[in-house]
Amino acid sequence: MTLITDFGLRDEYAGAMKGAILKVNPRCLVIDVTHQIEPQNVLRAAFVLKNTYSYYPPGTVHVAVVDPGVGTRRRPVILQKSGHFFVGPDNGVFTLVLSASGKTEGYEITRREFFLSPLSETFHGRDLFAPVAGHLSLGQDPKRFGRRAAGFVRAEWPQPQLKGEKLLGRILFADSFGNLITNISRQEYGPLIAGRPLRIKGKGWGIDGLHRTYGQGKDRKAVALFGSSGLLEIAVNRGSAKKALGLKPGERLIITLL
Amino acid sequence: MTLITDFGLRDEYAGAMKGAILKVNPRCLVIDVTHQIEPQNVLRAAFVLKNTYSYYPPGTVHVAVVDPGVGTRRRPVILQKSGHFFVGPDNGVFTLVLSASGKTEGYEITRREFFLSPLSETFHGRDLFAPVAGHLSLGQDPKRFGRRAAGFVRAEWPQPQLKGEKLLGRILFADSFGNLITNISRQEYGPLIAGRPLRIKGKGWGIDGLHRTYGQGKDRKAVALFGSSGLLEIAVNRGSAKKALGLKPGERLIITLL
Amino acid sequence: MTLITDFGLRDEYAGAMKGAILKVNPRCLVIDVTHQIEPQNVLRAAFVLKNTYSYYPPGTVHVAVVDPGVGTRRRPVILQKSGHFFVGPDNGVFTLVLSASGKTEGYEITRREFFLSPLSETFHGRDLFAPVAGHLSLGQDPKRFGRRAAGFVRAEWPQPQLKGEKLLGRILFADSFGNLITNISRQEYGPLIAGRPLRIKGKGWGIDGLHRTYGQGKDRKAVALFGSSGLLEIAVNRGSAKKALGLKPGERLIITLL
Repeated sequence: MTLITDFGLRDEYAGAMKGAILKVNPRCLVIDVTHQIEPQNVLRAAFVLKNTYSYYPPGTVHVAVVDPGVGTRRRPVILQKSGHFFVGPDNGVFTLVLSASGKTEGYEITRREFFLSPLSETFHGRDLFAPVAGHLSLGQDPKRFGRRAAGFVRAEWPQPQLKGEKLLGRILFADSFGNLITNISRQEYGPLIAGRPLRIKGKGWGIDGLHRTYGQGKDRKAVALFGSSGLLEIAVNRGSAKKALGLKPGERLIITLL
Repeated sequence: MTLITDFGLRDEYAGAMKGAILKVNPRCLVIDVTHQIEPQNVLRAAFVLKNTYSYYPPGTVHVAVVDPGVGTRRRPVILQKSGHFFVGPDNGVFTLVLSASGKTEGYEITRREFFLSPLSETFHGRDLFAPVAGHLSLGQDPKRFGRRAAGFVRAEWPQPQLKGEKLLGRILFADSFGNLITNISRQEYGPLIAGRPLRIKGKGWGIDGLHRTYGQGKDRKAVALFGSSGLLEIAVNRGSAKKALGLKPGERLIITLL
Repeated sequence: MTLITDFGLRDEYAGAMKGAILKVNPRCLVIDVTHQIEPQNVLRAAFVLKNTYSYYPPGTVHVAVVDPGVGTRRRPVILQKSGHFFVGPDNGVFTLVLSASGKTEGYEITRREFFLSPLSETFHGRDLFAPVAGHLSLGQDPKRFGRRAAGFVRAEWPQPQLKGEKLLGRILFADSFGNLITNISRQEYGPLIAGRPLRIKGKGWGIDGLHRTYGQGKDRKAVALFGSSGLLEIAVNRGSAKKALGLKPGERLIITLL
């Protein structure tokens, strides 16, 4: 089982949630993917989930709880896709699972006999999602937890725009190294731009051409490359592009094919 | 087995401690609850322990090492309560376990044959508590590690005061979301204040009434609710009450019943 | 299996890597030692690895991925020593394993059939080291992954200098408590300095004599002692020496025997 939350690592929340899983299935291998999603950043959680789940063996239960609407009307759900199970709130955190290729089956979790009692109104990670995930990891059929459902929430994902010889993108995230992840995917735009002379420009900075590795860049010089998530990244060899270029998520960039 | 420490996540301390556990019991599921207790904050560790242990299956060994007095005269102890085992220094970290309902049996750890040798004077987490916990997790009887003991240290826990129609409390902690946890428990004061018109006031801020969920609050507006730990919290929907109100642990608040 | 990386805990990197291990060996106990090595600080990773691996049971696979040269010519390697396996890039991260007593056998990892495909050029932690480590944990012979190798990279480790009655050292690291770890080891210099009257001086601060425990120091006063890693530390009881003395890694200190 994997966990993605915004609970942080200082409080009792992640630990209580893991307890509630292990009380149901004491032999479950619970893997912390991250508990440090920026509070309430559903898009970032969707991105981390997309970039991890397929590396796990089929049958894995992936729990994603970034849940600002806890206790209100958002639905708790189970999704099933390519042999993986996903458990969490239906608030967009599964956007990129839903848009991956393949069929998704979904269920709304309604059967209260699986929940902790009393069910708190502020911590469904511990009281609802954890025990349900524990039972799923024991091989329980997802049908057992509630009714079939559809129409799951998809968060809006900023798409790049192609205008003639120009591709307009955005910086989505900065990672811990200070690499800046853009919304330009190799899958969609690799065939267009890889191997071609091009120039990438933003406010006050520019990069010529694509590299393959961070190490190819001169020390402290910005390079662009397709990173391990399949998205174009702006990086600085042995440094932080975020600091060096002073860039933040949300900023624009333009790729011009030469 | 669960771990609560103030070792942080950058250094080798948590990793070495986990090794010393696994060397004794290589099949032990070691769960990180947190290694990010504020250095030497015994009260915070006591709080996290209280809010996690009962969610784990009976038989779990809970190791809590926040140990500013390591190598000095504080006693290393094992407690046993409601089927759970607790291992750590007798310095107040078990205050809220001791005050929970039920009988506690305790032992002072004295049998050096269970310790790593040489025993360092600065890192009993690795050299003493870890191997003892490892042996406990294998089903070893706690009596084997030393003599029965009593009179365990209880840290002072700030209690709220009721004066007529006013309840005087304090902010104990801020969590990672910036929610402010007070010392007013639902168990003790819920019957008095839940459902009644009331006003909560502090230095420069005030809140009317109680909410049930974070999501009920207007965005960026402070609300008060009983949180998942059973304590009254001051929170800001999709924001940080700590930042929004500029509040710190230790500050006072007054609840006036209207 | 243990993991030491500089991937941080906010991104998907550590989680994807753990998935790639578990896909090969779903029953593997994967222990996070740390993912918070300062980005690209190979020396710090070498230090953490040295201070953890021997506490684990023989047969453990230790994966250390601090890899600024990923995708360039540095060799991926497996080392075998005292019953432990080590997997990572040959860039100095194994310096202190190599210099520990005992024989080291080493292999360059060349057999691509063990790698994920396609092999990314920026994330060998996930695509190369994780699956190789997974297979090793299943008992696969290290010979299977490539050819015998030697001449592994050793990072330069700053050595103290003895000049008459003066021992010149340096501060290597600050830990999470603010304790300052020096390059003066008990093993090498303990016999010379332990129990002798001495004075430790740096820029603007001085300490007389050695202590055994943090708790022996007066509150807020700096002490020196041999810490749990076997190195001399400068510490402040219930405080941070780093903050109190304003010291940073790299700064010098002089021990004068009186």
